[in-house]
Amino acid sequence: MNAIVSNSQLTHFDASGQAHMVDVGQKSETHRIAVASGQIRMSAAAFEQLQPERNKKGDVLAIARIAAISGCKQTSQLIPLCHPLGLTRVAVDFIIDASLFSVSVQVTAETFGRTGVEMEALTGVTVGLLTIYDMLKAVDKGMCIENVHLLRKAGGKSGDWVHSNDANDTNDTNDQ
Amino acid sequence: MNAIVSNSQLTHFDASGQAHMVDVGQKSETHRIAVASGQIRMSAAAFEQLQPERNKKGDVLAIARIAAISGCKQTSQLIPLCHPLGLTRVAVDFIIDASLFSVSVQVTAETFGRTGVEMEALTGVTVGLLTIYDMLKAVDKGMCIENVHLLRKAGGKSGDWVHSNDANDTNDTNDQ
Amino acid sequence: MNAIVSNSQLTHFDASGQAHMVDVGQKSETHRIAVASGQIRMSAAAFEQLQPERNKKGDVLAIARIAAISGCKQTSQLIPLCHPLGLTRVAVDFIIDASLFSVSVQVTAETFGRTGVEMEALTGVTVGLLTIYDMLKAVDKGMCIENVHLLRKAGGKSGDWVHSNDANDTNDTNDQ
Amino acid sequence: MNAIVSNSQLTHFDASGQAHMVDVGQKSETHRIAVASGQIRMSAAAFEQLQPERNKKGDVLAIARIAAISGCKQTSQLIPLCHPLGLTRVAVDFIIDASLFSVSVQVTAETFGRTGVEMEALTGVTVGLLTIYDMLKAVDKGMCIENVHLLRKAGGKSGDWVHSNDANDTNDTNDQ
Amino acid sequence: MNAIVSNSQLTHFDASGQAHMVDVGQKSETHRIAVASGQIRMSAAAFEQLQPERNKKGDVLAIARIAAISGCKQTSQLIPLCHPLGLTRVAVDFIIDASLFSVSVQVTAETFGRTGVEMEALTGVTVGLLTIYDMLKAVDKGMCIENVHLLRKAGGKSGDWVHSNDANDTNDTNDQ
Amino acid sequence: MNAIVSNSQLTHFDASGQAHMVDVGQKSETHRIAVASGQIRMSAAAFEQLQPERNKKGDVLAIARIAAISGCKQTSQLIPLCHPLGLTRVAVDFIIDASLFSVSVQVTAETFGRTGVEMEALTGVTVGLLTIYDMLKAVDKGMCIENVHLLRKAGGKSGDWVHSNDANDTNDTNDQ
Repeated sequence: MNAIVSNSQLTHFDASGQAHMVDVGQKSETHRIAVASGQIRMSAAAFEQLQPERNKKGDVLAIARIAAISGCKQTSQLIPLCHPLGLTRVAVDFIIDASLFSVSVQVTAETFGRTGVEMEALTGVTVGLLTIYDMLKAVDKGMCIENVHLLRKAGGKSGDWVHSNDANDTNDTNDQ
Repeated sequence: MNAIVSNSQLTHFDASGQAHMVDVGQKSETHRIAVASGQIRMSAAAFEQLQPERNKKGDVLAIARIAAISGCKQTSQLIPLCHPLGLTRVAVDFIIDASLFSVSVQVTAETFGRTGVEMEALTGVTVGLLTIYDMLKAVDKGMCIENVHLLRKAGGKSGDWVHSNDANDTNDTNDQ
Repeated sequence: MNAIVSNSQLTHFDASGQAHMVDVGQKSETHRIAVASGQIRMSAAAFEQLQPERNKKGDVLAIARIAAISGCKQTSQLIPLCHPLGLTRVAVDFIIDASLFSVSVQVTAETFGRTGVEMEALTGVTVGLLTIYDMLKAVDKGMCIENVHLLRKAGGKSGDWVHSNDANDTNDTNDQ
Repeated sequence: MNAIVSNSQLTHFDASGQAHMVDVGQKSETHRIAVASGQIRMSAAAFEQLQPERNKKGDVLAIARIAAISGCKQTSQLIPLCHPLGLTRVAVDFIIDASLFSVSVQVTAETFGRTGVEMEALTGVTVGLLTIYDMLKAVDKGMCIENVHLLRKAGGKSGDWVHSNDANDTNDTNDQ
Repeated sequence: MNAIVSNSQLTHFDASGQAHMVDVGQKSETHRIAVASGQIRMSAAAFEQLQPERNKKGDVLAIARIAAISGCKQTSQLIPLCHPLGLTRVAVDFIIDASLFSVSVQVTAETFGRTGVEMEALTGVTVGLLTIYDMLKAVDKGMCIENVHLLRKAGGKSGDWVHSNDANDTNDTNDQ
Repeated sequence: MNAIVSNSQLTHFDASGQAHMVDVGQKSETHRIAVASGQIRMSAAAFEQLQPERNKKGDVLAIARIAAISGCKQTSQLIPLCHPLGLTRVAVDFIIDASLFSVSVQVTAETFGRTGVEMEALTGVTVGLLTIYDMLKAVDKGMCIENVHLLRKAGGKSGDWVHSNDANDTNDTNDQ
């Protein structure tokens, strides 16, 4: 870091270092997919509330699923330099781990467009996790959201990308 | 878990197990504070981009700060059962850890009202972290958001609450 | 209608006939409640899809419930002259009528404020019904939303009000 | 209903019964049109307020028209599993029936895209009707929204569709 | 500017120079009013289109009025550090000046709260003016928005304030 | 103006004078660019606060830049008859004029679509200017927003257009 070098690596800044919504007009419209996941760890008492028989008709994960999908659609209003774009598919999966008292949320977002949907998938994951927190916080305020990351993406000029999980990153193993 | 018990522990469900926006009309208007934090871990290459001299006028954290504040204001549109409420203060702090290549975001939200602002603080944290991801993803798509949790809250009937981390260390240190 | 009379009956217009968001600053903050309902009639085939065992984990009404609550919160963005206001409670009930192949949605909205929540309750009802339509339209595009109206309100200077159902308005009878 | 059959008829649920935003990525972009209508019945006193000479420059229906158009644009924020999409045209027509003291709102929505605009048209209709209610509620709180339904759609794989009015459904007769 | 002094004059920055949503929790709830105005100058051809007899039922200013009111309600989503707050009244007036081919928009916003509504009034003015531009741009793309400023405010600790028009600022004279 | 002529010049009104969102379905998708600008004049005291050394890490213009970009994305929610559309690029430039105590904001918006982005560029400019006002109003409430106009547009059937600055419109001269 001795020499000041250009910041061209960050596409959200132009040559003079100003933030902008980067020009994607020259990119071609392609099918783009992004998959992201994250998890929330909780106490045994909170985890027990996730059991369907506890909440009769109410279902924490059903509500979190809808919130995650709606959250994907609000991405460009939340992330300042994100392009507004259409979505052709959003799917949400949950993995409940009774040994860790944790729930994983995985969101798949797809579009046909000039830019990727990584931020949409990640935003969906976090809104889903925050909604689980909100639903269970009466029982456990200390829950912790962890390991929110992009699992893989496909489409676009940069092509396919898969997260390189190392040995310490066991949480992802079952997601892919 | 032998017997089915009532789900009254989850305030977001009524006696018949239906989700609802819980009645806070009987609560008194008090000064309420919530502080939440979370962090994002990244590669050395991405971390280097955070240095101000790399981005001239553009500043990743300045943009994340604004996004976090705006995110707080969008909480009730994101979290289905959250009450819409006014905010009397939002502040955002960053802690950069060069040894871990990580950035912590801490958001303090305050209101005078009938319900707490925990979700606002947590939403601000996640939107701030997602914005950092968005700004740096051209360099590192594998960044990971971790340890998003409530640090403390004050005000309201349930009174003060502090995350039960080792008391000797300031809020974040032992969260991992 | 021979003589032009003042339009003072419509509070949304001022003395010169201009639309405005009416001044509620002089009103006192009181507990206000509004209850509204409406229904959607559908084919037998669509109605059958509402049975829980048909959709396994997916639940049309659970999603409509969340949409109705979220819809309440978006009222002031949808209805031009509505005051933005906080909500202290929103509850949604469904009544399924197997003889009529219909579902009724009833929304109760509450606040402490200077203006009523009738529009919030009515907006919640219609968003809930539209969501049912959206979920079932693959089976029946001809579904019809009917009988959306205010059942009762309480609070405020104008005091309590209950819908006066006449004999032809049998749909409401069971709602109250 | 003896046997549990698959719920494949509801496209908003996947094979395992989970709600999702259905994949439209394989659909071709075509010109899509949807026309929906609905009406609001009111007292004679409220109906009289609709006369232009009553409200001078203020015009209830002009405001409802703008609300209906804006409402169309907010559809994907209101209906959880709706795809966000562009709109190439929105038009709103009113039919005033002095004999029934009713106003019908008809909305035509169009797009070029991978999914239809039925929900946009229906949402526009209901927001228009709710706005009329809001404007006139100072005179009549008992107004009733009725007969909100899709009149016809064109475009897309499922092709053209027209509502089949039967004899009991006389309200539609004049709409087409 | 020889010495670096503290930036305490800008309330939106804290003592360390970080942007924040300023703490208004200690302020008392008072009746607050703000009045702002601005104008748009246009060609004779565009100005002629404002005449009611040109557009039959369509009315450029009626639509701009609704847009201005809706714009006020969206202020805290547009201005990053603005507090979300309720509004107890919004009124919009137009002054048409045939000699200058200009239209002035004046917005009065009111609330009872802990912070002022200057930004709401100014946002309403600009959204109203932008809507006039949008409606007339088919005739004149060169229209210019000018002189958007706060006319006066009342309420709050800083008390009443009136814009001090100097001799060159004749546009305001008639507004007050 | 003796005779009533058709209002066909205003595309936002149909043949019967009703406002509508104009049909752009027949237009071809082309690359469209719009550049708009505007300025805010302020007191010497407010202008001095813009100096970076005054606000340490806080930067008024950096925040205004993000607000302008976010504002562009909210255009169709603010301007009633604007089509919702994607944006492929947004860039914001500031010109600080120390002799006039003014800041100019210039926004470039681009898309590939069936309709232009003039309103997006103009909305971005005004939101940027309003944000500067908000940040500096603690020092100077009398600031004035001026000269907000379209500089040029390209693309679409109507082709390229450049603002024709006359002699009285000296503010624009340097912008192009």
